[in-house]
Order: sequence, then C-alpha cells, then structure tokens
Amino acid sequence: MSKIVLGPNQYGKAENRVVRIYRDTAEHEIRDVNVTTALRGDFAAAHTHGDQRDVLPTDTQKNTCYAYAKEKGIGEIEDYALDLARHFVTDIEPVTGARVVVEEYGWQRLSEHAFVRAGQEVRTAQVTLENDREWVVSGLKDLTVLKSTGSEFHGFLRDGYTTLAETRDRIMATSLVARWRYLHTDVDWGKAYADIRSILLARFAEVHSLALQQTLWEMGKGVLEAHSEVAEAMLSAPNKHHFAVDLSPFGLDNPNEVFHADDRPYGLIECNVTRDDAPDAGPAWQTVAGLS
Amino acid sequence: MSKIVLGPNQYGKAENRVVRIYRDTAEHEIRDVNVTTALRGDFAAAHTHGDQRDVLPTDTQKNTCYAYAKEKGIGEIEDYALDLARHFVTDIEPVTGARVVVEEYGWQRLSEHAFVRAGQEVRTAQVTLENDREWVVSGLKDLTVLKSTGSEFHGFLRDGYTTLAETRDRIMATSLVARWRYLHTDVDWGKAYADIRSILLARFAEVHSLALQQTLWEMGKGVLEAHSEVAEAMLSAPNKHHFAVDLSPFGLDNPNEVFHADDRPYGLIECNVTRDDAPDAGPAWQTVAGLS
Amino acid sequence: MSKIVLGPNQYGKAENRVVRIYRDTAEHEIRDVNVTTALRGDFAAAHTHGDQRDVLPTDTQKNTCYAYAKEKGIGEIEDYALDLARHFVTDIEPVTGARVVVEEYGWQRLSEHAFVRAGQEVRTAQVTLENDREWVVSGLKDLTVLKSTGSEFHGFLRDGYTTLAETRDRIMATSLVARWRYLHTDVDWGKAYADIRSILLARFAEVHSLALQQTLWEMGKGVLEAHSEVAEAMLSAPNKHHFAVDLSPFGLDNPNEVFHADDRPYGLIECNVTRDDAPDAGPAWQTVAGLS
Amino acid sequence: MSKIVLGPNQYGKAENRVVRIYRDTAEHEIRDVNVTTALRGDFAAAHTHGDQRDVLPTDTQKNTCYAYAKEKGIGEIEDYALDLARHFVTDIEPVTGARVVVEEYGWQRLSEHAFVRAGQEVRTAQVTLENDREWVVSGLKDLTVLKSTGSEFHGFLRDGYTTLAETRDRIMATSLVARWRYLHTDVDWGKAYADIRSILLARFAEVHSLALQQTLWEMGKGVLEAHSEVAEAMLSAPNKHHFAVDLSPFGLDNPNEVFHADDRPYGLIECNVTRDDAPDAGPAWQTVAGLS
Repeated sequence: MSKIVLGPNQYGKAENRVVRIYRDTAEHEIRDVNVTTALRGDFAAAHTHGDQRDVLPTDTQKNTCYAYAKEKGIGEIEDYALDLARHFVTDIEPVTGARVVVEEYGWQRLSEHAFVRAGQEVRTAQVTLENDREWVVSGLKDLTVLKSTGSEFHGFLRDGYTTLAETRDRIMATSLVARWRYLHTDVDWGKAYADIRSILLARFAEVHSLALQQTLWEMGKGVLEAHSEVAEAMLSAPNKHHFAVDLSPFGLDNPNEVFHADDRPYGLIECNVTRDDAPDAGPAWQTVAGLS
Repeated sequence: MSKIVLGPNQYGKAENRVVRIYRDTAEHEIRDVNVTTALRGDFAAAHTHGDQRDVLPTDTQKNTCYAYAKEKGIGEIEDYALDLARHFVTDIEPVTGARVVVEEYGWQRLSEHAFVRAGQEVRTAQVTLENDREWVVSGLKDLTVLKSTGSEFHGFLRDGYTTLAETRDRIMATSLVARWRYLHTDVDWGKAYADIRSILLARFAEVHSLALQQTLWEMGKGVLEAHSEVAEAMLSAPNKHHFAVDLSPFGLDNPNEVFHADDRPYGLIECNVTRDDAPDAGPAWQTVAGLS
Repeated sequence: MSKIVLGPNQYGKAENRVVRIYRDTAEHEIRDVNVTTALRGDFAAAHTHGDQRDVLPTDTQKNTCYAYAKEKGIGEIEDYALDLARHFVTDIEPVTGARVVVEEYGWQRLSEHAFVRAGQEVRTAQVTLENDREWVVSGLKDLTVLKSTGSEFHGFLRDGYTTLAETRDRIMATSLVARWRYLHTDVDWGKAYADIRSILLARFAEVHSLALQQTLWEMGKGVLEAHSEVAEAMLSAPNKHHFAVDLSPFGLDNPNEVFHADDRPYGLIECNVTRDDAPDAGPAWQTVAGLS
Repeated sequence: MSKIVLGPNQYGKAENRVVRIYRDTAEHEIRDVNVTTALRGDFAAAHTHGDQRDVLPTDTQKNTCYAYAKEKGIGEIEDYALDLARHFVTDIEPVTGARVVVEEYGWQRLSEHAFVRAGQEVRTAQVTLENDREWVVSGLKDLTVLKSTGSEFHGFLRDGYTTLAETRDRIMATSLVARWRYLHTDVDWGKAYADIRSILLARFAEVHSLALQQTLWEMGKGVLEAHSEVAEAMLSAPNKHHFAVDLSPFGLDNPNEVFHADDRPYGLIECNVTRDDAPDAGPAWQTVAGLS
C-alpha cells in the first residue's frame, strides 16, 4: 500500500513593495520594485510536525529584502535578485535552493526629485539557485502593442466548426509577455534589457505578419541573433481581438476604420525560440508539481 | 399615506470600446476610447409597466457610438461626446437629457502603422446636456506621481488617538484624478488638455509641500490662473503612503532611502478650486440620488 | 476679475481593513469591514498656507477606526459608522461634517473558531453628518443574480441605428447595487438589511420582466412597501448580456440553451424609487463638485 | 555555431465564457464556465513561414467549446474538458496534444429559473492529453478561510534579519488554491470534488496549527487518505496576515480582538503531498519553457 509523503515544496514572502531612493546628490534616483522570495530545502519537519527549527520566517525574508536595498542597494534587478538568492542559499543552512522574482516599475523624471510613472510595462527578473547553479530569466510584461495594418490571416485549416473568414488586413494587438534565459550571469543586465526591448518592438513593427505565431517567432529570433548570451526566449501573447464593426445597416462602409476592442475570449499564442545547442534549462522556468 | 413614485433615473450602454483608425495616408492615426452613454427623460412607463415604446435600446446607443466614429470621426473626445449627447437629445424625442463619458487611452508611434501604449494615465471627458444647456468636464485619472523629498507634515491637530510623528521630509506619492469644468464649449480641447496636464505636473514638482492639501490647491490654482475658460477644478488624490523602513535592528541607518510602498489604508484628499464668480455647476458633476 | 477660492473639500483615511473577533466564549464571532472616513469643515488654511493646526491627521482617523472596534465594538455597521462620524463631529472642534462608509464581508461558520467567506456580495453603509443632522444610506453591492427565462424585451423605440431583434425570452443577469436611505436612525439595522435583501431577491425571481427597468422598479417598490422606515431606494444594475450563440453553422439548434456571457459593453440601468412625501435627501447621496 | 530553432509552443482560445442552461423541465439548471483550450503539435511552419495550413483557428476552438456545450452538454467540468481535448487530438490531424482548462462558477437556486451566485470560490479542472495518455488535475481556488485562534508560530530559525515575535495565538487566514491529480479518469468527478472540498475545510478547521505548512500538509494528507484515486495534491496558500493592532497608546488592551488585515506582502506557502508510489505526473502540471 502506498505511503503518503511530502513532495516538492517552497515558501517565502510574496510582493514586498520596496522603493529605494538614491539621494546622495540633488538629482535623486528611484528604484521601485516588487520582490518575491521562495526558499527550498528539507522542510519536512515543518510540514509533518509543525517543527519550525529549520524555517527562516517569511517575515525575515521580507526584512532581508528591505535591508539589502540599503546594504547592497538596488541596481539592476537581476543583481538584486541574485544577491538575495545567494544570501539565502549560502547563509541559511537548511536552505538549498531559492527563487527570487522581481518586477520593476519605471518612472520618468519631472525634476530633480519628482517623477511620473512611465508606461504600463513591467520589467521582470526570475532567479533560481539550485545545486550550486544559477539561472537568470529576464523579461517584461504588459507591453501593449498594436498594428493597424500589415497583418493577415488566411489559408488556415478548416473543420466542421470553422466559420472564420479569411482576412488580408486586420488589426493585430497584444499585451506581450517576453522572457529570456541567459546562458550565464556575466551580463550587463540593463544594457541587454534595453536592447532586447528595442528588438521586440522593432520586429513587431517591421514584420509583415501572416500569423501572430510568425510575429512571435521573428521577435524571438531577433533577440537570439543579436544576443549570444541568451539561450532561449519565451513569448506569450494574447491576441487582443479588434473586430471591424459592420456599419452597413447604417449606410456606412467600414474599410477597417472602426473596430470594437473585445475582452474575452482572446487567442493565446505561446512559443519558445531556442538554440539547438542550448544547455538544459534545469529549474529556470520550472514550476514543480503545480508550484508557482 | 405616502405614495411610491419613480425618482431620478437614467439608462444607457456602458464601456463601448471603440477604436478608430485613420488610414488615409501611409502614416496611420489611432484613437482608442471607452464610451458610456446615459439617457434621461420621462421613462416612467418602462419602469412601472414595462412599456418600451419610448425606450431607445442600449444596443442602439452602442451602434450609434460606433457609427459616429465613422460619420463624425473621433477627434477630441469632448467633441465626440458632445456630438453623441446632442444627437440623443435632439433626434430622439423622449430624450430630454444625456450624459456621455469618454475615456481615452494614449498610444505612442513605433512606425507608420505600429503603436505602443503610452503611460498609465487616462484622459477623460464627461458631457452633460439638460434643459438646452451643455456642460463639459474634462480631466485625467491614474496619473501616478511621486516626490522623493520636498514634502513635510507637521503642526497638525492632535487628540487622544494621535500617534503620528511629525516629519520634515517624506515621500509624497499619489495617483491623481483631476477634473475641470469649462465655462463654455468654445475651447481648443486638445491644446487645453495638454497645457493643463503640464501645469499639474509642474506644480506637483515645484511646490514645496506642507500637506497634500496644499499641493492640490496649488495645482488647481495654477490651472485656473492660466485657463480663463475653466470655471473650477476638482482634485482627488490618494496619499499613497511610503513608509521609511526601520533598519536599525540590522545595524543600518535609513535616512529616507528605503521605503515600503503600502496599499491600504491610504489618505484620500479631495478639493475643489473655483472662481468666486463661477456660474452654477448645474448637473455637470452631479450624480443624482446615488446614480452614477 | 474673478478670484480663485477653495470650494468644497474633504479628507480622510480610506479603506481601513478592520477585523474584529469576539472571543468571550468558545464560539467566536467575526466582523470583517472596510472603513473609510472623510471629514469636512473649514480647512482653508491647510490648503492655502499648508497650516495644519486644524487638521486631524488621516493617521489619527485610522487609529480611531481600530480603537472604536474595541471601545464600541463592531455590531451593525450603521452603528459603527454613526459612532465614528458622531465622534469626529462632536469631539474634534474644526470638524463640522463627516462621512463614514463601511463595507462588510460575510463569513460562514465552519467550527467554533473557523470560518469560510460567504458569497460575493458586500453589505454597505454610508453615514453623513452635517448641520446637526444625520443621514444613513444602507445597501449592498456585487449581488450577482440571473434568470434563465421570464424576461422579454420588445416594443422598443427604433431609429436609424437600431438593429436589435425583439425577444420574448432571454437571460437577464446583473450584478446589483442597491442602496436605500432611512428616514431616521431608530432602526434595527441587521433585521432591516436581511429582510430588504430577501425582498430584492424575491422580486427579482418573481417578476416576469418586460425590461430591466421594470424589474428594478418592482424591487424598489417592494422594499418601500414593506419598510416604512425607508424613504427611497436607488438601484443600479449592469445588464450583463448573455448572447445566445448561433449554432446553426454546425447543424445544431439553440433554443436558449447555450450562451456567451459577454464582458463589455453592458447596459447600465439606474433608477430611484421614492415616496412622494420623502423629506429632502440633503447630502445623503451627494458627491459635491465631483468629490467622492 | 548554434542554430536558432522553434522550441515548445502551443496556441488556443482563452477564457471562453460559456453558460449552459438546461430547461427541459420547469426547474432549470445552470452551468457557468470559463474554458481555455490550447493545442500542441508540429506548428513550425506557422511560426517560421506564416503557413497556416495545419493551424485550426482559435476561433474554431471557440466555436467548438460552444457547440460541445450543446452536443455533449456540460455535466462535470472534467468530462467537458476531456471531451474537448479528445476531439482536438483525435479529429484534427496535426494536433498531437491538448490542454483544456475549465473554471466553474457556482450558483444557488432562488426559484425554478432564478439563481444567485454562490460563494467566491471557483472549481477548476485541467486536462492534458499527450502521447495517447490523459491526465486530469482537478481543484479549486479563491476558497477564503480564516481561523480566529488555534494557530501558533514559534521556535523558528533566527538570523540577523529576524525581528518577528513568537506567538502562541494568531489569526490564520488564506485564500486557498488546491489542486489534485487523479490516477485515472474513472472517477465520479462531482462526488469526489464535493468530498475533497469538505475534507479541506474540515482539516483547516480541526488541525491545531503550528505553521501554515502543517495545515497544508494535513489537508493534503486528508485528501489522499480518503481518496485512493488521487495520486497527489498541491496546495498553495497565501498567508493573509492579520496584525493585532497596538491599542495601548489609547489605554486599551487588545487580547487578539482587533486586527488589521494587510494586503502586501504576504507569506506564500506551497507544497505537494503525494504517494511514494505515484506514477510520474508527466505533463499534468507542466508548464514547459515558461508556457502557461
């Protein structure tokens, strides 16, 4: 008969909203982040007997996030995440693995010490430490883009449930999630991020699209071609449908000028673009057994 | 004994997500709006007897929003809202009043026909027609701003429930809602909007603040001083608290460098800045009997 | 030339998330509320000169909400709101008016001291004190209801933008907001709330509806007929459209069995049902000059 | 030199909001679901050349969801998801794998054909078909529970960043996500769901908790002990902190009666409880290469 045992597990403090002001000169700098830490190791006793002797409280993890913002500062979010993850794995004996996820919100300068939130998009970093190895996945989310032409969709497979008309001209819009795994940690994170973001936007704008799949592939390929330090890129894109409204009942034509932006359902296209010799991703993306 | 009667009422179609592309030249333009219409009049029969003969369906209101995006186009949102409101009041016999609310989302150009969503803020317009008069309230919301210094709070009233420490230096951050009522409709809406937004940002940045109240007052005053066509301005600002974290248990000082950005509760400061001779606002702001 | 002056204003602490446990016996009780306070009075100096001497900090208002949960307890939310509002107006000299809004979340008992959140709906109370008078508006929101038949819509006004087909049978669904103003404060709040909620649900279920307007009217009328202590009721109801899907391309009929539940746009129907001799509502519902 | 290639990918239609009414008798039944489909297979040509000949449109997937609600009906969501997944893999030649995720919203009966939304929690099912095998993971989310006593936290590991006080009595609250993988598909899904939900609630209420980890373990163990058809259970629980408010500045004691319910940060505890002889989960939970 089977025995019931503890499987994969992790615990941490989610969504620490850390704001770091650099104010050494009259011109202040701001770093605005949302940090989540998760620790892994042998925490069986905490589960099966409520024995906390090996459990560093999530409250302590929170304190560490704030203290490190002062001790180490917050430069690039990848470094901040690595610092935190290395600390937990190195300094806290029962901890054998860690995942740290950071989201960063952008601000635009108004004056020496006033700022306005810039854009909707969020820069992201996910760092995983396990078995003396480190994985860094950087990315962005909520990057909302739209093309008013230059997008087709036709020649698709049809079955008995297919009613969709083919089109040679449609709006293509998405709220992009892009994440890319680095081959190592010897990277100028900020420079790489800015350049990859530019490539994603440029490829979205330039590629004459026969399918959202093709656009994503071209975006991912563009990133890998330009960045040898990137092993693979993952792109996830809701197809935010814009339906041309039938205005003929009102005696009006509508040559793709008036659209209804619909909410749900939406297409969801996801793909990974990789190198044929990319080393194994290990736990870089992994969400084990349903864990986040 | 009292008789039960129908009080104020209105009905309409909320959140029509209209996107209008101008594509007459290679360089496309995009207008992305969220339109809500509400009609007022004597609709007692619809309520008390289910008699719809005077009720223009909300579906028709929706159609009109889309059709007008073609027929009239979408230029400035105030004009689009006025066109719709005037149509309903003028052309639909039982309709004696109308309110049209438009939100506009900004896009930044990537190429001739590709765009990326710009900023978080939303431009707004609320138009009310009643008794042959027209009121226009323009505004913005979700304009998130932060000052890393130049904000104090002290000398306040204290009672037995007061524990707050005085401060000479704190972060001040808010997600501003600003709305202003125009004296008439002979306004260059787009130019006025851009200039008022600039004034709001500049005053936020420039004013050395002794209280969020003072900053709001100065913002409102700045708008009225520069814009004689504005009767009054309403400013609503959550005080998004950023608490300096006590790092002393870790042997670290924190001279306003590391903050926790808290969610709830938040201060909520609201004020109206007006002219002493401003004509009555009538129903411009009004939400009658709890109606939206 | 006009002078720029301070208009209506208020300030307070929004969304204090107070949880009160009664644990005097083994069977605990829980009250889970979200409290917002706003104070009114002559706060001109705080705005124009940053002079805080008359300003009771929003932090103090927060403290008071938590302290009152102990001192006065949290029984019915109307009493809790009245206690807070009376305190501010009576005990804090510069305060001449107050508004306190409370939302309450329901819990269902699992054991003596374990609970599970019950339902989506939220009970609400809004109390306004001004000029030695008190107004109480109670209500609920997010009460989501649906009828799978017994709803028609036809005989409506048509114009050139009308395409809607008439229907003798449709789904009617809404997420109801209902609020009612009491004539006085000598009310058994909990009993009245429970009974009014029952009436609203019963009328929704029973009324064969020719329009959402009619259903709202009948709900409001039902409340006023049964509750002489209620002056008026306000009902706001999004018409959450459920569109019967055309399955004929797949050789299937669809006699109102399969629907798409759409998000936006939605109809929005709002009405007030009142007594012909109801005393003036004063500031009970009022949101002055765009203030909340 | 490395070659850039397409990695894992999938595409589908997300969040089809299907409502199915059974109206064969006067007492109607309602099934209210949110369905997401994703297809897997060799879709390289669509990515690299925009060639859609093997791509069944997401619009067709949507149509199929609605058509199946009529053709097959919506009984238990696991069956509905399996029907859809099997159809795509069996009937659509290029499709070699499928994932279908269904969320179900509960309704409580008011009358023969009127209903009110019940509770906040959502029942979930995730079905994965690959390589002629089928995996079913059922679950629930947004089940918000709270214990007002019977929860301790002490004896934990301390480091230089630890400031947390030990406690012998605290509020424990969470919004539970629970998911469990079935060993096969020969299950009475509805009966199993109802029973597992009961076990989760009962264990939460009964277990005197020394840590949220322990409570989750006991919940998972309870499920596996009672349900031999379940291979493993995954529990993810935000620790929704309720902080006892310090009322001593106001001369009040607070023996765990008044709490502030905080939003962020929150603890996040996740664990998997499994059988030592559980067969490999394969792709049941898997999100490959960052895909959802």
